[in-house]
This record gives sequence, C-alpha cells and structure tokens, in this order.
Amino acid sequence: MRATVLYAAGDVRVEDRPDPTVQAPTDAVVRVVRACVCGSDLHPYHSMPASEHGRTMGHEFVGVVEEVGADVTTVQRGDVVIAPFAWFDNTCEFCREGLTTSCLHGGFFSGTQAEAVRVPQADGTLVKAPVGEDSALLPSLLTLSDVLITGHHAAVTAGVDARTSVTVIGDGAVGLLAVMAAKRLGAEQIVLMGRHVARTDLGREFGATDVVAERGEEGVAKVLELTGGRGTHTVLECVGHLPAYEQAVGTVRAGGVISRVGVPQYESAPVGFDSLFGRNVTLTGGPGAQRPYIEELLPDVLEGRIEPGRVFDRTVGLDETPEAYRAMDQREALKVLVRP
Amino acid sequence: MRATVLYAAGDVRVEDRPDPTVQAPTDAVVRVVRACVCGSDLHPYHSMPASEHGRTMGHEFVGVVEEVGADVTTVQRGDVVIAPFAWFDNTCEFCREGLTTSCLHGGFFSGTQAEAVRVPQADGTLVKAPVGEDSALLPSLLTLSDVLITGHHAAVTAGVDARTSVTVIGDGAVGLLAVMAAKRLGAEQIVLMGRHVARTDLGREFGATDVVAERGEEGVAKVLELTGGRGTHTVLECVGHLPAYEQAVGTVRAGGVISRVGVPQYESAPVGFDSLFGRNVTLTGGPGAQRPYIEELLPDVLEGRIEPGRVFDRTVGLDETPEAYRAMDQREALKVLVRP
Repeated sequence: MRATVLYAAGDVRVEDRPDPTVQAPTDAVVRVVRACVCGSDLHPYHSMPASEHGRTMGHEFVGVVEEVGADVTTVQRGDVVIAPFAWFDNTCEFCREGLTTSCLHGGFFSGTQAEAVRVPQADGTLVKAPVGEDSALLPSLLTLSDVLITGHHAAVTAGVDARTSVTVIGDGAVGLLAVMAAKRLGAEQIVLMGRHVARTDLGREFGATDVVAERGEEGVAKVLELTGGRGTHTVLECVGHLPAYEQAVGTVRAGGVISRVGVPQYESAPVGFDSLFGRNVTLTGGPGAQRPYIEELLPDVLEGRIEPGRVFDRTVGLDETPEAYRAMDQREALKVLVRP
Repeated sequence: MRATVLYAAGDVRVEDRPDPTVQAPTDAVVRVVRACVCGSDLHPYHSMPASEHGRTMGHEFVGVVEEVGADVTTVQRGDVVIAPFAWFDNTCEFCREGLTTSCLHGGFFSGTQAEAVRVPQADGTLVKAPVGEDSALLPSLLTLSDVLITGHHAAVTAGVDARTSVTVIGDGAVGLLAVMAAKRLGAEQIVLMGRHVARTDLGREFGATDVVAERGEEGVAKVLELTGGRGTHTVLECVGHLPAYEQAVGTVRAGGVISRVGVPQYESAPVGFDSLFGRNVTLTGGPGAQRPYIEELLPDVLEGRIEPGRVFDRTVGLDETPEAYRAMDQREALKVLVRP
C-alpha cells in the first residue's frame, strides 16, 4: 500500500509499504477512507532528525473494516468506523474510568495517512458510524478522531460551563473546535487568541465572542482588558509551544484552570509562586483520545447540531500529502483532508 | 513591643519594634497569645540575603483583640480570635468564591512572632473563637491559622474522598495535617512519605495507612509497589522543594492530581509529555488561607473530633524564637509554639 513517511524535518514522502495484516486475534485491518494532517504532525515536520527508515505519519482516520481477527465481535467487514488517535481495550481499569489514553494495553496511532491501517484492540478502539463511505458527514466524523475530541477534552478538563469565561489560545483546528466545544458546554464569553483572520472568522462562527490577534504581553493585556483585569476562569491552550503556555499563565484568572491539549514542545515551564502557585491556578489537560467523548459527540455530528468538519479547507489525494504538510506549515491551509 | 526579625540566613533576633496601631478604620490590633514557627519560615532562614532592616517573621497566631478601628463590627476588644495567614475583606468577588488569598484588598501576614499584630480588614480576616485565652484548645486552634487549613487545602483541591488513594509527601506539620485532612475526607489508603520516625508515627495516628521512608526513585518505587504499580489518585506535596515535586510526579496515578501546598522554592519544573501531559495528570494547589476552611474545621476542633495541635512538640517564650528556628531546622522539633 501507499503510506506517508517522514524522513527528516521537511522531508515527507509517499511510498510503498507492506499491507497491514491481522497479527493478533483482537486486530482489525481498516481501509482508510479519509485521513488528514494534524497540527501536531507539524512538530516533527519542523524538528525530526534524519532517519534512515523514516516514520509513518498520521493518527486520524475514518475507514471501512476490511478484515477482523478471530476475537473481534463489535465490528465486521464493511462497517464504517472512526477511531480516536489511540487504541485501547476499553475494559482495563483506566478505560473503565474513561481515560482510554492510559489503557494498560493501548498505544497511539502513527501511520494513518495511508491506504490502510492495522487497528490493535479493535473492539475497544473502533466506533461504528451509521453512514455510508460516501457520506457528506465524513469530514465532521473525521474530527472525532482527534481535533474535536481534543478541543472537547480541553473544555471538559478545564471545567467549562455556563458560569466560566474562556480563553482559547491558538487558531488551528483544535483551537477552533475548542471554541465549539466551550460554546456547546454553555460558555458565554469565549476569547479566541489567533492572528489568522480567516481562521478567527470561523472561530467567531463557532462561538468566539472576542478575538485577540496580539500575542505575548500585548495579547495578555488585551484579554485582561476584556475581562475587567481578571483574566478568564479557564484557558484552553491549543498550541503546545512555551510562549502559548506563558500566554495561558498571563490570561488565567486567580483560582482558574489552564488546560493544555497542544502537545508540549518543552519539558520544563514556570509553575512557581508567580506563575501558578500564588494564585491557586490549576494546570490540567493531556491527550484527549478518550472513547466516551466520541460516543457523546457522535449524535451531535450525525444530527447536524455541530459541523466541526468545516475546519477542513483543502482536500488532497494520498500522493499529495507532502504538499498538505507544506500548505499547513505555511498557514495556506487550516487543515487538509486526505483521500487515499 | 518585642518582635522576631530575620536579618539574614540563620540570623534570627528578637528586638523592640514600634507597637502596632490602628491605621485604617477597618484595622484591629491583636495581642498575640500564641504564635509559632512554620516550615515555610525555614525557607528564608536558609536563603535570605543579608538585610539592613531585617524582615519581621511569622504569619500564624491566635490572639485577643486589643483595639478596633471605627468600621470594625464583627469583633471587639477582648475577643479571642484566629486569623489565617492572609488578610482579606471577605466581600470582594474572589472572597465570595472562597478564594480569600486572592482578595482584591488583601495580603499575607509577616510579623506575628511578636507581642502584637496589626490586622488589616479585621472584619473579613478575624474569626472569633468561643474560648478563653487560657484554653487548652489554643494549640489546635492555632493550626487553623495555617498548617491544618493548608493540609486541608491540599486534600480539597486534589479532590480527596472515599474513592481516592492518597500520597502525602513531607512529614512536617503540614504533611501530617494533610494526612489528618485526607482521613477526615474519607480516604482509605494514605501513604505518608517521610523519614523521621517520631513524625511518621504521629502521621499513623492521624490516619496514614503506610509510611515510606525512602526518597527519590527508591521512594517512588515503594509507593508504586504499595499501589499495584499505579501510584495514587492524589498526591499532596507538602514540602516545596523540587525533589518533592519530582516524587509527586513519580507517585501520581495516570489521570490523577498533584496538589502542592509547600511554597515552591523553584520557578520552573517538568510539566511536559513525560511528566504531566502524557498521563493527563493535573497540577493544582497554592496558598490555603481560605476563610471558609476555618469555619468548616472550627467545630471539629472545638468538639474534639480532631486534635491537630498535637503537631506542637515544644513551646518557647518570645525571646527564644531563634532557638525555635534552630531546633526546627535541625529537625529536633516538629513545630514550635511561641508564647509571647
């Protein structure tokens, strides 16, 4: 099959790789119908050291089940399925608590920008979608693989509700869908920090009440101005770079919560008296590939109450994924859909 | 009056300072009946650069009101009162939410290891205790000034309840009272990390089910052993040094909460994928001088259901506070009561 492989920063290739097969009785093989490029794919695209064998890329997909192992009972050949960006058995103690990213028998996908993918723990991981493989809902369903559930995770872990004001940092797909998620959970003031007008305009349609284009101290000052000098009860950090973290610290209200869902590109950050401790600020978040979110959000997508697929503004074939990376990196595209 | 002043690391003196007076109509002057030395006082005792005028020390006290400003209505001359280690108006938007340490008109005490103290925002800050100034309950009441409410804050912000396992890091007074608070909130497994047997023995009496004397990686391994390799749902970090933070990261269960109440002696710390993010660990905590805690815990102290004053294992007169610092620093005393 054809698959997308990153060999070094900036060096994306599409090449032949062995077809995936059922290796364990709990596996499924899924033919990818839609995949996409994620903001987090841009991190290795910027920084990965050269690698002889490369790294297969992508962790989001909607597909059709091609083959299942002997123990798989919840999906069968021909089903249209969604998977979050992690696999899990959905039965271990962490899965039962809803924290499927910490499954004792789980892991994270890498290699879905391809014609097919092996899905371990298929019963736990795959969620059947009652649509055909030509459904107009596929882009929105694909956001349940990562960007919508990740934005939702930020809002949920931050405790967003009707009483909380919200700052969303980042106007990538996750940031925009964090706006959507915060709105869906009842937030009335949602400040979106981002400087790409086409994106922040979409953010306004998703529910942002204010947009702050400035960054750094200037951006923080604007958010404080919008909130009577206090900052917002919650800050959803959807970028992953240290300056975004610092913006979060600057814009959060005393006693408030910063939830991070952008994969941190740093290990250490300020957490001392002046940044978090003195004002009783809580730092939370992490990978949001929790299966219960898909089950919670799927009806809203199927019934058209939300249309998160609007974050896709370009579609390419599988052989064009290098161009998809380039366009997203250059901010020419917000999020690129890949049709293998 | 006599007051305790720190002039440099290790240089504690007791000397004459001007008597405090009512300066604003919302002030009270309180004669200190009991004060004490805090583990957090040892931080400047270790590291404060030399200072010409010195810094008056102490932030915990029980006292008797001597004089009140014209606007003070809730306490009067002769009342026995407790104050947390911060002052606040108890009417601003943060106070109304219970976050009195972020009061818009508040601050932190410094100078209660003295014969008297000026209390700004007396109506908001002072809580009347229905006891005489010779009550045997004074030591326990004094813990409502800091160490008990701080331990309670750790347990509350971490979300301790009957379903959560708990690790408490630190066998100082705050750590031991965090054990008491966790027990009071229903926790069934409470692992106390500390290596001073007299202290950890008291911790067992307060509710610790396990004691781990080892530190660092060895200590983490022991906690994991006690918890089926998972760590505990909550970790209450009651020290403030970076190695204690690292122990917290090592002992917290995926999806769990670290609450810090030891004043951080560092500004940056690991918060990236491997420490907090990847496992969806939440970091919370901060100063715990929240008035609602005093109101919640006071009945338990008055009715003898808890006896937090047992953390005091030595009493000195005001002129002996330098010796109190030395004894606590040398771990000869757990917590020293000061009787001016």
